[in-house]
Amino acid sequence: MITTTCLDSTTKKFTRDFPSADISDYCLSERNVVWADVSDPTSQDFIDLAEEFNFHPLSIEDCQKAHQRPKVEEYAGYYFIVLYEAELVGASDDLELRELNIFLGPNFLVTVHSRPIRAVETARRLWNEWTDRAEHGAGLLAYLLIDAIVDDYMPLLDILSDRMDDLEDAIFGEFKPDAIQEIFRVKKQLLYLRRSITPLRDVFNTMLRREQPIFARETHVYFQDVFDHIIRVADTIDTLRDMLGSTMDAYLSVSGNRMNVVMKRLTSIATILMSVTLISSVYGMNFNFMPELHWKYGYIFALTSMLVVGVGLYFYLRKAKWL
Amino acid sequence: MITTTCLDSTTKKFTRDFPSADISDYCLSERNVVWADVSDPTSQDFIDLAEEFNFHPLSIEDCQKAHQRPKVEEYAGYYFIVLYEAELVGASDDLELRELNIFLGPNFLVTVHSRPIRAVETARRLWNEWTDRAEHGAGLLAYLLIDAIVDDYMPLLDILSDRMDDLEDAIFGEFKPDAIQEIFRVKKQLLYLRRSITPLRDVFNTMLRREQPIFARETHVYFQDVFDHIIRVADTIDTLRDMLGSTMDAYLSVSGNRMNVVMKRLTSIATILMSVTLISSVYGMNFNFMPELHWKYGYIFALTSMLVVGVGLYFYLRKAKWL
Amino acid sequence: MITTTCLDSTTKKFTRDFPSADISDYCLSERNVVWADVSDPTSQDFIDLAEEFNFHPLSIEDCQKAHQRPKVEEYAGYYFIVLYEAELVGASDDLELRELNIFLGPNFLVTVHSRPIRAVETARRLWNEWTDRAEHGAGLLAYLLIDAIVDDYMPLLDILSDRMDDLEDAIFGEFKPDAIQEIFRVKKQLLYLRRSITPLRDVFNTMLRREQPIFARETHVYFQDVFDHIIRVADTIDTLRDMLGSTMDAYLSVSGNRMNVVMKRLTSIATILMSVTLISSVYGMNFNFMPELHWKYGYIFALTSMLVVGVGLYFYLRKAKWL
Amino acid sequence: MITTTCLDSTTKKFTRDFPSADISDYCLSERNVVWADVSDPTSQDFIDLAEEFNFHPLSIEDCQKAHQRPKVEEYAGYYFIVLYEAELVGASDDLELRELNIFLGPNFLVTVHSRPIRAVETARRLWNEWTDRAEHGAGLLAYLLIDAIVDDYMPLLDILSDRMDDLEDAIFGEFKPDAIQEIFRVKKQLLYLRRSITPLRDVFNTMLRREQPIFARETHVYFQDVFDHIIRVADTIDTLRDMLGSTMDAYLSVSGNRMNVVMKRLTSIATILMSVTLISSVYGMNFNFMPELHWKYGYIFALTSMLVVGVGLYFYLRKAKWL
Amino acid sequence: MITTTCLDSTTKKFTRDFPSADISDYCLSERNVVWADVSDPTSQDFIDLAEEFNFHPLSIEDCQKAHQRPKVEEYAGYYFIVLYEAELVGASDDLELRELNIFLGPNFLVTVHSRPIRAVETARRLWNEWTDRAEHGAGLLAYLLIDAIVDDYMPLLDILSDRMDDLEDAIFGEFKPDAIQEIFRVKKQLLYLRRSITPLRDVFNTMLRREQPIFARETHVYFQDVFDHIIRVADTIDTLRDMLGSTMDAYLSVSGNRMNVVMKRLTSIATILMSVTLISSVYGMNFNFMPELHWKYGYIFALTSMLVVGVGLYFYLRKAKWL
Repeated sequence: MITTTCLDSTTKKFTRDFPSADISDYCLSERNVVWADVSDPTSQDFIDLAEEFNFHPLSIEDCQKAHQRPKVEEYAGYYFIVLYEAELVGASDDLELRELNIFLGPNFLVTVHSRPIRAVETARRLWNEWTDRAEHGAGLLAYLLIDAIVDDYMPLLDILSDRMDDLEDAIFGEFKPDAIQEIFRVKKQLLYLRRSITPLRDVFNTMLRREQPIFARETHVYFQDVFDHIIRVADTIDTLRDMLGSTMDAYLSVSGNRMNVVMKRLTSIATILMSVTLISSVYGMNFNFMPELHWKYGYIFALTSMLVVGVGLYFYLRKAKWL
Repeated sequence: MITTTCLDSTTKKFTRDFPSADISDYCLSERNVVWADVSDPTSQDFIDLAEEFNFHPLSIEDCQKAHQRPKVEEYAGYYFIVLYEAELVGASDDLELRELNIFLGPNFLVTVHSRPIRAVETARRLWNEWTDRAEHGAGLLAYLLIDAIVDDYMPLLDILSDRMDDLEDAIFGEFKPDAIQEIFRVKKQLLYLRRSITPLRDVFNTMLRREQPIFARETHVYFQDVFDHIIRVADTIDTLRDMLGSTMDAYLSVSGNRMNVVMKRLTSIATILMSVTLISSVYGMNFNFMPELHWKYGYIFALTSMLVVGVGLYFYLRKAKWL
Repeated sequence: MITTTCLDSTTKKFTRDFPSADISDYCLSERNVVWADVSDPTSQDFIDLAEEFNFHPLSIEDCQKAHQRPKVEEYAGYYFIVLYEAELVGASDDLELRELNIFLGPNFLVTVHSRPIRAVETARRLWNEWTDRAEHGAGLLAYLLIDAIVDDYMPLLDILSDRMDDLEDAIFGEFKPDAIQEIFRVKKQLLYLRRSITPLRDVFNTMLRREQPIFARETHVYFQDVFDHIIRVADTIDTLRDMLGSTMDAYLSVSGNRMNVVMKRLTSIATILMSVTLISSVYGMNFNFMPELHWKYGYIFALTSMLVVGVGLYFYLRKAKWL
Repeated sequence: MITTTCLDSTTKKFTRDFPSADISDYCLSERNVVWADVSDPTSQDFIDLAEEFNFHPLSIEDCQKAHQRPKVEEYAGYYFIVLYEAELVGASDDLELRELNIFLGPNFLVTVHSRPIRAVETARRLWNEWTDRAEHGAGLLAYLLIDAIVDDYMPLLDILSDRMDDLEDAIFGEFKPDAIQEIFRVKKQLLYLRRSITPLRDVFNTMLRREQPIFARETHVYFQDVFDHIIRVADTIDTLRDMLGSTMDAYLSVSGNRMNVVMKRLTSIATILMSVTLISSVYGMNFNFMPELHWKYGYIFALTSMLVVGVGLYFYLRKAKWL
Repeated sequence: MITTTCLDSTTKKFTRDFPSADISDYCLSERNVVWADVSDPTSQDFIDLAEEFNFHPLSIEDCQKAHQRPKVEEYAGYYFIVLYEAELVGASDDLELRELNIFLGPNFLVTVHSRPIRAVETARRLWNEWTDRAEHGAGLLAYLLIDAIVDDYMPLLDILSDRMDDLEDAIFGEFKPDAIQEIFRVKKQLLYLRRSITPLRDVFNTMLRREQPIFARETHVYFQDVFDHIIRVADTIDTLRDMLGSTMDAYLSVSGNRMNVVMKRLTSIATILMSVTLISSVYGMNFNFMPELHWKYGYIFALTSMLVVGVGLYFYLRKAKWL
């Protein structure tokens, strides 16, 4: 389904849902900005797009194939951009990455996505409010859209950061062996997030350093801002990864320490029991001449020595911190 | 065996298997694109090639020696490219890397390989279909061929990714100690795949940034596309390697945890048994004056205390999560 | 609250707290340097700033949102700089990072912060003393401020370095298992410090290599000095991180060694006790014909052999360094 | 000892061992290529070389001091190159690195080495054969020499690769604890090999990108070929290092697993023995009223229960995979 | 204390310790090279230096503050260089780093240090010998000084390398658990050495690539030589760090293996003792009808079975390599 919105740069009025056949005429006039949002596209939609805007077959093919890597590619007269919107969904907070393809020209923006993208709504709302900056053309619109996507990464990373604090409590507080599985899960989510944002860092960097940009210098400051946000997200991801590595190390170390304490304790108890058993075993021998056996208080004596040896060892090992 | 195909740029017709002696004349006319595919080459084939196309002796030597590293080298008037096609073969999914040498000039393409390459068939089929883009010359043909090879890496990486999911189940589900051997095997395969694709990333990057390219700017967009696919494959490999590292860590950690649980449990049982044995050992002593021995229910009393101590310890250790 | 101070470059006198409406006139005269320090800013303050100095909306927005990453951004006629002052506060030496936003033009400096910044006071004091270098304009003032912030990192890193020496003692001296938690805490603090200083390294580097700087070459030498201090801080952080990694390894290794010693010792003791018990167990057998049982010194003989075996094993294991 | 060979570029004849006093005259004529090979040099040899070819004192000093790092330095009119020939020698395959110093001018090559270098012989043989490419001057000769050295790294790396396969068998097959020592040894050899080849990668790269090369563009293609081989060797070393890291991880993991299996098994056996002993210990008690003791088949009953408990536990633990 | 030496470039004579007031006149004449060595400087010394040579206040401040990072900074007309001389001192071979500040102009060199620097003496001696190369001005003097410092790192690294060989013996030979502490110590020393040399690598690289150097091209070859030595030192440090990492891994692995062997052995012995004790425990039961008890050779039979079981198990476990 193609939803087309057009902003007349002089009157600053919006026109919606006119027949797509008129798009290129509007674009040619160069005073208007056209946004064609294609959700859940059909094969025919792609053919229409290619014809109307004269897109290169390769960019249309990339757009049709899902699971592209995030990128910014330059074609004659427009940029082809692939981005991913990230969200934690469901009861178990699974990470969902939704692909958004953008064709960005000086005065048109075409967005293609098979699933609903929240950032599209955010951008539409802000575009209606920011008509006073209409002179930036489609560049501003692209800024609003990309920035909405990139900014949505931050609260998500805050959630992961909170979860890592919980993990830390689960390690240094009452140790939970299952924490490892959760560490592994967060690690994987960070890996996917990183993969969907870091390639953009390099391409935006290249794009901003270009000699002859498609957009004016004044619009550039907006892309610089997006670039800065991308770096911030990428940096935060790297910091979280680094901290998760430390959390993993801490997990292993605390896990090892706890095992050590348990084993030392159990083996110490075994030692005490064996020592005490040795005494009883001695008096279980069947020699004819064993004076203690015939003492009146021999039994009491034996039990007492067993108690003395047991308690003595207990305090000795306690002092040596083995128990 | 040399199979030669020629595409007449004006008539857009193909001619096949004409005598190789005519190749250079066709090339000189500059309106035609010639593809000479040399499979399982003989020494004479190499001499013929060098003479016909005037290739530099060093590139012919590289072509003759097997096991080159993937690369793109520039010689006067042509590129010499080494690529590897990857496939998982056999019942045990062994990784097979098949070398393909390409000589790429503005209007000729020479492919040399000792084993059958699937991508050669794919490229031949697409070339027959895409005659409408014949103005790109041999560049388009090279694009079809290289892209077919690079794209074949993706399904292979999907298989490895699935296998890593299985490994994860084998670790967090019912733990299998043998998983380590499989982790090691996938790691090795990723290492070989990485080695056969990442060098291309750097050389394509250099090639695309050249001042005076052999091919026109319009054809460049196709190489840009291949470059993008190479990056995607290389990124995916790096992500998989990263995840495999985490899988390895998880394996070690879960393996350690399981060992801890078993050792704690066994040592706890030993402690219980020793405590109970201690009681029986006490009543095995031979003192004359041991009142319990003469009690009517002495034996029952002893057995009961043994049971009480045993069961009591069992629940105590259970509560302490040592058992 | 906005505190405005103005230095007249010719008379080298300071004027304070004049109505903010006069700021731009002062700036226009180009002989004066104006410093507007905005602490705990209100929404109205931001609107005033944007109007008075004609700041770009994006930099004002960045300034309003807290938790920006450290950065230097260039806008038309001024730099927008985000920095963090670091301090260890409270009884448990928690790391506090206080954000400082700076707008830096050729002859004005605007500082915005929601919490008191010590470096602001330091810079104000030095500015009053250094009136003889007034020809450097706002650049010198920015130098004083940023240098005060960056220099404050060093004593903080010295504290962390001392704490790491303590950790080392806690590992190689009398081993303390809790050291792991402290290692983890220092690691996290280093991570946060690193994150608040290293981005500056790259941007200052870029800024210093610019073709057309806002400030004169003579003022540049001051920024070069700040840059050098930033590198020194970043290097020290990296060195501390590296050493902390070694400390972690040492912790794990010493912890493992100690566990080994304890386990070897306990298991050795168990072996001795079992050997001795075996002897007593032998003489607890009820065979009719056991000559030793009827010897006069049988009991003494048994006890002596138990002692001999026990002491013998003790010295044997001691020699083998298992005990 | 100085061995001098001269190739007359026009007649393509070789002259040998003429008095060294004539060298510079030959060089001045610019039609000839002179190769002076200095093996086991004396102090006088160095003085002669410096005088004859007018070498800079610093390069002569570097040449006299052994254990330089591999490098390519440019002096006025010549390159000074340091390389290492690698060989595995002796019964225990110790790695031997033999230093070769090269002074390379447009029409002279001076090689200095204190130990015999195999590549010198290889280069001499090929030089005699390749007289048809004499127009490349000393550059071709340098190519032959350096390529012979670099190519000799590959079979050596193949040997190390085979050894790593053996190590893998020694880990996953019948586990050998001593494998760690061999892993360590191969790691060290790879470290030395890497150190003697990777610095060349960077310097050749710089040399090939120079604006005004000493050698013509046609000769450059040969250096490009050497560069490619160096990269291939360096890549292979990096891959082997990476795989050795995995081998080390596998060793540790398998070693840990095996220990786990042994400990679980031994502790399980101990548990069984203790359970059985408990029964016999119960019937060793001396209570007056113990009915079982007076049963006719009491003893058989006791032995049977011991057997039942023992075998029962055995199968139980077997099923739980602890035994 | 300031020691001033002056070399007249034409007469090649040295003048010493003339009043410092004359320095700038000598320098202005441009035919002389002046070296002012300031050891253990007072505040007045710094004021004198700044006045006499017109140094920038920032470089004087850097010079006054100790613990700068190694660096080369360019000021108008001179370089400011900070270096560290390294030495192992005392019985326990502690690493001592002594700071040396250098102001280097075309025909003057000012060295400032608070502790005696050996390299200053070495450079002074060589300067007296190398008067024939006086045309290089202060550049040659700086070369002699810096090279003396950098070269002193190599024997120190050789000592550390020897110590690592000893560590290797202490691991693979007779295992010494304390080796970990020594590994940690060498690691720290390498870290400090690295930190005091690697920053120079980057700055010398930048300095050598400058467009308009302070020194002539001929003098550059000397700085190139120092640069090469710095790289060699830095490479060696990196190699040693890499090897120390392997040594650490080997330590952990061998330590683990040894523990495994001991634990297996002790637990095996325990198993044997328990089996034997079981037999004696059986014959300690008090059943009325136990035929063996009444056999004449029952006791011998029991002892023999105990011996058979014990020895049998011993050889079985020995064969299984658990003992």
